[in-house]
Amino acid sequence: MLNVGIVQQSNTADIVLNRSKLKANILACAEKGAQLVVLQELHDSLYFCQTESPENFDLAVTIPGAETAYYSEIAKSAKIVLVTSLFEKRAPGLYHNTAVVFDSDGSIAGKYRKMHIPDDPAYYEKFYFTPGDLGFTPIQTSLGKLGVLVCWDQWYPEAARLMALAGAELLIYPTAIGWESTDAAEEKQRQTDAWMIAQRAHAVANGLHVISVNRCGYEPDPSAVTNGIEFWGNSFVAGPQGEILFQAPNSKEINQVISLDLLRTETVRRMWPFFRDRRIDAFGNITKRYLD
Amino acid sequence: MLNVGIVQQSNTADIVLNRSKLKANILACAEKGAQLVVLQELHDSLYFCQTESPENFDLAVTIPGAETAYYSEIAKSAKIVLVTSLFEKRAPGLYHNTAVVFDSDGSIAGKYRKMHIPDDPAYYEKFYFTPGDLGFTPIQTSLGKLGVLVCWDQWYPEAARLMALAGAELLIYPTAIGWESTDAAEEKQRQTDAWMIAQRAHAVANGLHVISVNRCGYEPDPSAVTNGIEFWGNSFVAGPQGEILFQAPNSKEINQVISLDLLRTETVRRMWPFFRDRRIDAFGNITKRYLD
Repeated sequence: MLNVGIVQQSNTADIVLNRSKLKANILACAEKGAQLVVLQELHDSLYFCQTESPENFDLAVTIPGAETAYYSEIAKSAKIVLVTSLFEKRAPGLYHNTAVVFDSDGSIAGKYRKMHIPDDPAYYEKFYFTPGDLGFTPIQTSLGKLGVLVCWDQWYPEAARLMALAGAELLIYPTAIGWESTDAAEEKQRQTDAWMIAQRAHAVANGLHVISVNRCGYEPDPSAVTNGIEFWGNSFVAGPQGEILFQAPNSKEINQVISLDLLRTETVRRMWPFFRDRRIDAFGNITKRYLD
Repeated sequence: MLNVGIVQQSNTADIVLNRSKLKANILACAEKGAQLVVLQELHDSLYFCQTESPENFDLAVTIPGAETAYYSEIAKSAKIVLVTSLFEKRAPGLYHNTAVVFDSDGSIAGKYRKMHIPDDPAYYEKFYFTPGDLGFTPIQTSLGKLGVLVCWDQWYPEAARLMALAGAELLIYPTAIGWESTDAAEEKQRQTDAWMIAQRAHAVANGLHVISVNRCGYEPDPSAVTNGIEFWGNSFVAGPQGEILFQAPNSKEINQVISLDLLRTETVRRMWPFFRDRRIDAFGNITKRYLD
């Protein structure tokens, strides 16, 4: 069994405070037996992509650097594998939305640069993040190969499939998604359901566990163009048939440890051998934008 | 609005009886205003793939032939587009699991040969059906381009995506899937949920309505190797956010007409422009069996 800790929290403009709260939650998971801990997307700060402001690039960090040293030390002291999500400064004018995975000895096991970058009102990520250039490559850790993807990637079955084909043993999504407060209740429900269905379906299609960790709490729009984002929480873990093993509430901060039986992947894939029958001879057009 | 009729029924060994029941259900849908009617997979007969028996090839029909004439006449008289699912005899020793779509004038609008063929206990389809060679090509009808896929295809996000990229305006799955009676209740629930999640996720990922029509009723295993199949019904229609617009019970025969607002595809894709951001430069390995 693999014990996975997930940390869902609300953030403030105080980065030091956010980090110390994260540390306390990570250590709480470790004390409860977590071997792997997953944090939400861009967990150090507010979700700054609500506006396009050049000064927000000051929030970016070099990898490695002081910030990775902070999480490295936590991973090492708690003897856990830790999945973080950082705003990476790679060069002047070149930034990524990057998940950094620390192994239990504190080393950087690998990083994943978010491949799919959204841009819609209150989520102006294309202004900040260059699309990833590391491909859909699982990160080898002492606990196995982790298929780490980030937020907007979760809507793309191709991303999940490529991670699975490359040997990922589970799929992990740090994410930051929420409701616009003026949306009707039914629309909010449809959005949250769609978000869960899409990711649970990655579990089904690939016979893998899926871990999705979202932030919670309300963050106002500094530009007042929208009514801000009410991050919808609902961090969850699904088994390889898409079944929900744990689901957090929408607005409550939590740290929670869930035990995963990774051997179920073998069992489920024997029963539903989807990989056996993929029509790879007929999939070539997946690399096309549209067929017209 | 597009009014879609779906027919979920149980079958017997009496093909003439099955067909006359189908006809009555199709006409009942048409009377209720259906413009498009979708039937379940291999609706003319029992699900004969529970065993590998050479004499079952006698059930196959040529396309066109007397059987397509039967459905052509129904489509024409009811002025509907009709999605059927037939056991196609193409040549001696060459058979397919083929969906034939009739336009409202009775002509054959097109056919789709099931691309992904399953083979697991009680579903020995690889014995009977050569994998399709027509690709993932939508069928143009007077009601629009229909993305017709069949059963086992429903587990493959690639199939849904390719239909959507080729301009399908909705996805349609005739299917025949059920429970083995000795499975635990929780396992049955996981299977049904996974089946729905996988298809609802195709709706989400592609911003399209999905229509899935399954058979119901119990059919014994003639070989007595398994305990037979309890087809789980639950035929459903999902909107382009994966929301359930209609869901049939698991064991009851139904004919039902559901109104679809196909304009929602445009609305939903503007809000969630997944097609805009697909990393087609990084999807090439989708055509690989495995990356090792």
